[in-house]
Order: sequence, then C-alpha cells, then structure tokens
Amino acid sequence: MSERVRIFVTGGTFDKEYNELTGELFFQETHVPDMLRLGRSHVNVEIETLMMIDSLQMTGQDRDRIRDRCRECAETQIVVTHGTDTMEQTAAVLGQSIAGKTIVLTGAMVPYTFGSSDGMFNLGTALAFVQTLGEGVYVAMNGKCFPWNDVHKDRERGIFEARHRR
Amino acid sequence: MSERVRIFVTGGTFDKEYNELTGELFFQETHVPDMLRLGRSHVNVEIETLMMIDSLQMTGQDRDRIRDRCRECAETQIVVTHGTDTMEQTAAVLGQSIAGKTIVLTGAMVPYTFGSSDGMFNLGTALAFVQTLGEGVYVAMNGKCFPWNDVHKDRERGIFEARHRR
Amino acid sequence: MSERVRIFVTGGTFDKEYNELTGELFFQETHVPDMLRLGRSHVNVEIETLMMIDSLQMTGQDRDRIRDRCRECAETQIVVTHGTDTMEQTAAVLGQSIAGKTIVLTGAMVPYTFGSSDGMFNLGTALAFVQTLGEGVYVAMNGKCFPWNDVHKDRERGIFEARHRR
Amino acid sequence: MSERVRIFVTGGTFDKEYNELTGELFFQETHVPDMLRLGRSHVNVEIETLMMIDSLQMTGQDRDRIRDRCRECAETQIVVTHGTDTMEQTAAVLGQSIAGKTIVLTGAMVPYTFGSSDGMFNLGTALAFVQTLGEGVYVAMNGKCFPWNDVHKDRERGIFEARHRR
Repeated sequence: MSERVRIFVTGGTFDKEYNELTGELFFQETHVPDMLRLGRSHVNVEIETLMMIDSLQMTGQDRDRIRDRCRECAETQIVVTHGTDTMEQTAAVLGQSIAGKTIVLTGAMVPYTFGSSDGMFNLGTALAFVQTLGEGVYVAMNGKCFPWNDVHKDRERGIFEARHRR
Repeated sequence: MSERVRIFVTGGTFDKEYNELTGELFFQETHVPDMLRLGRSHVNVEIETLMMIDSLQMTGQDRDRIRDRCRECAETQIVVTHGTDTMEQTAAVLGQSIAGKTIVLTGAMVPYTFGSSDGMFNLGTALAFVQTLGEGVYVAMNGKCFPWNDVHKDRERGIFEARHRR
Repeated sequence: MSERVRIFVTGGTFDKEYNELTGELFFQETHVPDMLRLGRSHVNVEIETLMMIDSLQMTGQDRDRIRDRCRECAETQIVVTHGTDTMEQTAAVLGQSIAGKTIVLTGAMVPYTFGSSDGMFNLGTALAFVQTLGEGVYVAMNGKCFPWNDVHKDRERGIFEARHRR
Repeated sequence: MSERVRIFVTGGTFDKEYNELTGELFFQETHVPDMLRLGRSHVNVEIETLMMIDSLQMTGQDRDRIRDRCRECAETQIVVTHGTDTMEQTAAVLGQSIAGKTIVLTGAMVPYTFGSSDGMFNLGTALAFVQTLGEGVYVAMNGKCFPWNDVHKDRERGIFEARHRR
C-alpha cells in the first residue's frame, strides 16, 4: 500500500462552487487538495486536473483524454473524480481499453462546499478501494464499489447500484 | 461486496460533543448513523454501540468485551470506531485473538461536530477497506490501512504510520 | 425591546437548497426557524412565509402582498427576508407606503445551506436593527443598515452601499 | 452609521479551538476577522486583541485593562468579545466607569469552529446594536440586548435574560 496514487480531476458536482454575484453554480479550482488536508490524508498522491466540467457536457474527446492520461501516467493506482451523471459511460470507456491498472471513479451528489456534501466520504472510499482492489475499472459511490460493467445510476433515487442482482 | 458490515461504536474523539453549559467535551449518542446518511451510504450495516468512552479510559475488560462481540457477531466484516490514543492496543488484542474475520479500526483526530473533522473521510476509508481486505485486523487512519502488528501513532505529529519502514 | 417581531419570509438566496437529483438550486421550506435555533435566539418572533421565490421573479403583485401583510400584522417591528437582486425595489414600495412601523429587509449572498453563507450574520444584524431603529424601512446587509431611499446593490462587487456619499 | 467600530477581543468560547494532538480546547488567534469576512461585513472596524482567555480566568486587572482601553480608544462604538460566564461582571465594571460611549459585549455558547456555533449570529447582533444604541454598556446575547445593570446568565439553561421582569 505504499505506492503513489494518481488523482485525475475532471469536475462534476464534487467541485462546483456557488457564484455569489450571479447565483449560479460554477467551477473554479478543484477542492481535492483541501479535502485531503481535511481528511489528514498521508497517502502519497499526485493530483492532476484534466478538465473542470459538468459530466453531462463531457464529449468523446474528453473521455479519450482521460483514457490516454490513465494509460500514460506512471502510477497503476488511479482515482478519477467525475460528475455522477455520465460516470458509468466514462467507466465503460476506461474499462474496455485499459489493462494492468486499478482505476476508481468517484464523485458527489452535493458539492463539497455545501454542508451536506457526500464528497469527503466518497473520496475516502475511493482512495481506500484504489489501494486494495486488483486490476480493473470501478465506480465508488454510496460506500460501495462497482465493476465498470455492472453499475448503473438510478437517477430518480440518486444512487448507484449493480445492474444485475447479486 | 454484498455482505453486511457490523459497526461497533466505542466512542473516541469521533463522537465527542461540546456541552454548551459546561464548556466541556462529552459523549452523547454516536454520530455514525448521521455520518452514513450524509455519505449517502447504501452499504448494508448493523450499528452497535459497545461503550462511549475516551480510549485513554479503556480498560482490559473493555477490550475483552470488544473482542468477544467481534467473535460472537455473525458478520465477518467489522468496523470498530475507537479513540486514536489507544487504537493500536485494541488492534493488538483483536489481532492476537481473532481469526477468520476482517476487522478495521478507525477514529478521528477532530470530533465530527467540528467543521474541521476528518471523521467522514476516515469512516469512508474504513468501510471501503473492510469490504476489500482479507482476514486480519487493521487500523484505517490518514487514508491508509495498517496491519495491527505494524502500526504506531506518532503523538507529536498526530498521524499513524507503519512501525517498520517498508 | 420586549415586543414581538414579525418575520416575513419571501425566499431569495437565503433559503435556496441544492437538489441533488437535478443539480439545481431550488426552494423548499424556509431555514429561518433553524437559523434562529442555531443562534440561540430568544427574541419573541412570529414567522410567516409569504412566498418562496427568487427576487428577480418578484412581481408588483407580490410586492403589494408584502406591503399589505406589513400593514395588517399587529407587530410594529418587522423583518423581511428577501433576495438581494431586487431588495431595494421592495424596500422602496414599503418605504413609500407604510408609516408607523420599523421594517428591515435582509437576505444573503450565499445560501444558508452552504458553509460559506453570510445568512446567520445578516439575520443577526436584521433582528438587532429592527429592535433598535425608529420608524422607517431599512435594508440590512454587509453589517450595515441603509434607509430605503439611500441604498443600492453594486452587482459587480456584490455589496450594498449608500447611494449618496455620507 | 458611518463611524468606525472598535472590536476588543478577550477570548471566551467564541474563539476556542480544538487541539487535535491533546484533545483539549485552547486559544490560538481570534476568528473575528474570518467571521466578518464570512458575513461580508463592510462595517469600518479596528480589531484589537486584548487577551485570549476563558472568562472564568479573568482577573480584576484584566477587567481594568479592558476598561482602560475602552476609555482610551478614539472610537465611541465598541464591541467586546467575551466569555459568557463572567460577561455580566465585566459589563458592570464598564457600566460603572465609562460614559459617552456605546459598548456592546457579546460571546458564544459554542466555539465558532463548531458547526453548531451561535457566534456568527451573535457577532451580527452586536455589530448592529453598537451602531444604533445610545450611550451605555450592553450585553448582546440570544438575539437581544440587555443594559449592563439588568442582565443575568441563567447557567442551567445557558441563556441571558433581564434580572427584572419588564
């Protein structure tokens, strides 16, 4: 468990902020370093912001870039912060094309800057899963970890679950 | 990963509250259910409060009780919330006497009720580690997971680390 | 200072919540009772929700309703929670038509549910101003209190100031 | 209302922090500047820390120093942040010896660094009261303002109230 973990930031609800001049949610800098500090994390991490977008805006090109960076980087343990709406699509792109690495996607239902955010909890689970799971691409949400080809966001209830009954 | 996880609550900084009449920190009910709700956790858990004490007050008898309940309970995946000051002692008691279960101890440096708490992050890591690690007794702090016989709290820096260089 | 204070809730940023299913800000119940509890307020208040809207959506009819309720209610000390964007317009409507009462409008630049909200501070100032100022209609923002006919929101900087240098 | 307000910091629960190495509450720097920033306050203030102590530890000499600084400073509008346990004693010292100034003492039942603090609300009320009340010494707690010679902390309920029925 002493390896370095690469964290790729792509935006999502996780990192949304409230613009008090316009009343809109927007992206500024990622909160991941602050969150790791708050968690007193001493995991060896390298944080790299790939994009800061809502995952509904994410294009095929964006996903290719995430895939390429996952392949290129030296680390074999990778966490990707991502909007929840299309997390399963990106997980599928990565799952179908990358071998030999452990990649965990996570996000949040409520922005970190809100008191009621699930961000700290999810980041904690993702960092733990990436250090312990074998090769593969996973989604870490709701305290659970799902393989990329068996995960689905139930938009009405706002939770992730396995596609197939287990 | 679909098993039920038993969470044993023993108190510790994690669950300390501020008594606004006396200005002292004290224990009331555990915050673990609130924390899991905030984390939107859908892990199947059974929470059981064994005691609500500062871990510096924990006696051999208290540790025996934790050990007994870990043995007796039906679940093989167990999280124990615990004060950080004597977490390694309790881990050693469990590590030397329990086989066939995955037990993860965790806690917090700052009470959950403070804005700056590491509690949510730690609870997230503990729940993830307990679902993925094999048999054994571990301490989950600072984003890492340590085997019970290779963990040490550096009290001056307030962090957990391996006893032996790895 | 022992009179009862009427608090009219009209919505505004103050009371916006984050909908975790849609990712949008919306209105549910007012947070004013929670906020007064958090402030350990023992001011005798009567809270009445008139509407829950963004102040950019507020119509002349809505303002008439606020004015009518301010006139009709038994209390002479009134706080109106309001979106900041058109707070000065509503203040002008009330200022031009109501005599014999002390009315203080307040709001927030950031929703109460965000960690970085100015809501608690503003509500505190508004409740204090309404108990101490004489007859008139005022806007309480940024720790200050402005008469209705000498207040202006600088939208670029997000602060309220006097129209005329003093 | 355009005068400068002097804020004297003396410590109290308001400014207590949690020492994560010892598990004790202690004083570091005052949070008042952060709190005013969070409140988007644009009141012209000058903050001066006189001491950082629990008000149960406050001596006659400490109170003399507060009184002297209240007299000496150029401002006629003064807020004093203070522990709640002996706030009425300090108010009495100031009330019996200072004329020609408006002095408002305030504090908090729960430290600002806790999520459940009343600090922001109280600071808001104190700043508003000091700008609007006439000469005199007052205590601002629980959303109310009490003259120094008619205030009492009910320690069992943790609230301030008038000594005499009004």
